[in-house]
Amino acid sequence: MDILKVRSHQREELVEITELVQEKLKESEAQEGIVILYVQHTTAGLTVNENADPDVPRDMLHALRTLIPQHGMGFRHGEENSDAHIKASLTGPSVTIPFRDGKLLLGRWQGVFLCEFDGGRERRVIMMVR
Amino acid sequence: MDILKVRSHQREELVEITELVQEKLKESEAQEGIVILYVQHTTAGLTVNENADPDVPRDMLHALRTLIPQHGMGFRHGEENSDAHIKASLTGPSVTIPFRDGKLLLGRWQGVFLCEFDGGRERRVIMMVR
Amino acid sequence: MDILKVRSHQREELVEITELVQEKLKESEAQEGIVILYVQHTTAGLTVNENADPDVPRDMLHALRTLIPQHGMGFRHGEENSDAHIKASLTGPSVTIPFRDGKLLLGRWQGVFLCEFDGGRERRVIMMVR
Repeated sequence: MDILKVRSHQREELVEITELVQEKLKESEAQEGIVILYVQHTTAGLTVNENADPDVPRDMLHALRTLIPQHGMGFRHGEENSDAHIKASLTGPSVTIPFRDGKLLLGRWQGVFLCEFDGGRERRVIMMVR
Repeated sequence: MDILKVRSHQREELVEITELVQEKLKESEAQEGIVILYVQHTTAGLTVNENADPDVPRDMLHALRTLIPQHGMGFRHGEENSDAHIKASLTGPSVTIPFRDGKLLLGRWQGVFLCEFDGGRERRVIMMVR
Repeated sequence: MDILKVRSHQREELVEITELVQEKLKESEAQEGIVILYVQHTTAGLTVNENADPDVPRDMLHALRTLIPQHGMGFRHGEENSDAHIKASLTGPSVTIPFRDGKLLLGRWQGVFLCEFDGGRERRVIMMVR
């Protein structure tokens, strides 16, 4: 088990963690199985998406913000971050990625991202190999 | 393997199951690994989110209902619960949570919830430890 | 490990793969555990939902298209498929399904679907049994 510490710098940001995960997987010396990543927070999620064009993460955050704005939806939770809680559940708290020969079986355009919805902060992601 | 039976009382409701899952995990005597929860229904999901302020689950259901109302979107499915099917796929049918020393590695504010979108009913959640 | 090749024929389509997954599981001769399905693409996802009435997948695609249309949201990504990337992250790149006695523990109405958001294409889904 590893704990990855991931730093975000903006309120909403997709922080790529692909290389960090691949490095930890290499250190584990496991050859075939699944990597489980799990974020220990309620206003951040994890996802897999394109890591080539930065406009893809930008468009994703833009669309989520358009659908679920921080203000104006009649939220009652007093911390003014209900939007972040909801986006976190929509992207989800975990991703499971298969690997073989010690390498994540990501598609050509896929990267792994921490989805920050209420940053910037340091976030904790648990990584397990099974 | 365990089958958790979870009772909902309203059409839309987030029912916390954290303690139930932690108890079953303790009974299994497993020390480190992952818990997989899987809901055997198409109008309910599973998620992890804040369990401290009840306004967080309330705001989540409110936002989903605003985006995907039960009526008025031109749905064709005759049971008048297409909204519930869609919300179930958005939250997702399963969550995977790592544990160590027999304890779920939840963050400080995290709880595990059955997301009921077409209740109240008794729902079945499969739990596996690996 | 298996690689499932799944063919879609429309830009947006839910392609059921339940039988294909069940067959591969049978071939593996595993009795109890979890099946992990992982799509190696950034404009397609995986989900579990009702496979009885084709209006359910239809309504799901309709709702997602209503919320996140291909054009008109101010997307910057040049390939005109930002909507597909976002829908892929909302449904998610993987599903984890428990099985026992060599059979997927699906609910009565549940089927497994590849969610195509930018087809028709051949898609690759990694399947692992643990």
